[in-house]
Amino acid sequence: MTYSELSEQINKKQSYLCVGLDTDLRKLPQHLLTEPDPVFTFNKAIIDATTDLAVAYKPNIAFYEAQGPRGWESLQKTLDYIPKDCFTIADAKRGDIGNTSGLYARTFFDPIAAGLDFDSVTVAPYMGRDSVMPFLEYDGKWVILLALTSNPGSADFQRQQVDGQELFEVIIQTAQEWVGPTNHERLMFVVGATQATELARIRALAPKNVLLVPGVGAQGGSLADVSKHGLTVDGGLLVNASRSILYASDGTNFADRARAEAKTLQREMAQHLLANV
Amino acid sequence: MTYSELSEQINKKQSYLCVGLDTDLRKLPQHLLTEPDPVFTFNKAIIDATTDLAVAYKPNIAFYEAQGPRGWESLQKTLDYIPKDCFTIADAKRGDIGNTSGLYARTFFDPIAAGLDFDSVTVAPYMGRDSVMPFLEYDGKWVILLALTSNPGSADFQRQQVDGQELFEVIIQTAQEWVGPTNHERLMFVVGATQATELARIRALAPKNVLLVPGVGAQGGSLADVSKHGLTVDGGLLVNASRSILYASDGTNFADRARAEAKTLQREMAQHLLANV
Repeated sequence: MTYSELSEQINKKQSYLCVGLDTDLRKLPQHLLTEPDPVFTFNKAIIDATTDLAVAYKPNIAFYEAQGPRGWESLQKTLDYIPKDCFTIADAKRGDIGNTSGLYARTFFDPIAAGLDFDSVTVAPYMGRDSVMPFLEYDGKWVILLALTSNPGSADFQRQQVDGQELFEVIIQTAQEWVGPTNHERLMFVVGATQATELARIRALAPKNVLLVPGVGAQGGSLADVSKHGLTVDGGLLVNASRSILYASDGTNFADRARAEAKTLQREMAQHLLANV
Repeated sequence: MTYSELSEQINKKQSYLCVGLDTDLRKLPQHLLTEPDPVFTFNKAIIDATTDLAVAYKPNIAFYEAQGPRGWESLQKTLDYIPKDCFTIADAKRGDIGNTSGLYARTFFDPIAAGLDFDSVTVAPYMGRDSVMPFLEYDGKWVILLALTSNPGSADFQRQQVDGQELFEVIIQTAQEWVGPTNHERLMFVVGATQATELARIRALAPKNVLLVPGVGAQGGSLADVSKHGLTVDGGLLVNASRSILYASDGTNFADRARAEAKTLQREMAQHLLANV
């Protein structure tokens, strides 16, 4: 999906909601556990319940890997099921030397390799340029680079002072230089909602890049603050919610409750989009 | 495997060789491609040919993931086949918020989860303390933290000046504090052989930690330099070679040629260990 197609979807659905598919077998409604593939059955119901409210889906790869080959099969089926008008994110936080990053790119972007054809993958910046660029050798695919994450450990290294800036700011600027003038068409940044006070600074450093914002809901971030500082004329935000939607209920009504949670977020997003015009 | 068991193996085998199982279907000898699981057949032959010369094996997870569920099955079989007196490393470079890192730890450390029971996993430090510590909640398991990597991109962020030190130095010191006084029993660092001039400084910052050193051979690092600055009384090094061993020949003699390459490295290591006494 291109930058302008994503902007169109945000405008059409009046939503910048990303549903995080952190599907944990141990948290699924009991009645699903007798299904042949409970994870896929659950994801399918969540997708059906939210597809008109969400512009993106983000499977967290750890949850699938932790089930071995069976988990990868659930992931393949889930990705195939997501409608083509939704942006897809492999939340994998990969990054390695060039030839190995190239293989991670194949994994998530080349359907002939591992049966997966995501739009984007989250990438860790620590190993630098040649760990990031192989992902962009796939036409039309995106890198979503970790900048300032939502967890307590984000203070340990991301916020270290480097030449009068914080490290995450250096990373945001440097990565844009790697990709070039139209970098916003292929490069997003992860910015935790728990860091909303920094969003205005980040928006100044990356005026057009879409920001993927986790941490609203379970982790305590405010959708109003994020929207105020992060929205652009094109949208420019994907705000992720995982647990608050997926596990809104552990009963047979889980999909209805998930939809209600997603609807609440989408309604608030529509208001913020209106205020942003 | 414990720190002292690893030291014993280094002493017994007179070797600190780690064989990197970067097994690429596209580079395998032609005659293996008709096997039901060419990757496992190849790995089995490499392990048989090198097990008395190597103290560790390091499957590079990207190579397995890039083949989807089938690749994970090859990985499971490979790990099961590695003799128990060899240290095993999942070279996965994972790292995420606490609960997700916990799932990556389950993936590689809990055989009931994904059928894998590695001794250690490589972890990226960018997300800080709570992205690293969940891996150490598994008794006897190790974190191998990226410090100064072997690739060109290591200059981009790892070597940025932070408070009069380079970022990788801050990370080496901080991570030791997280783990505590006996951190060398659970914590190793990745230091590229292409950065041998920095090894003396790193050894001063981490006097007892084992250093995992990639980049000898194909990437151009010198085993003599690495050994001179990196060896300790307990060994303290794992030097990885991947492509130079695995792809020494693409003919039916590939295992013999792999053994010859490993033997050359082991003999040089024995000399460095002797000089280090």
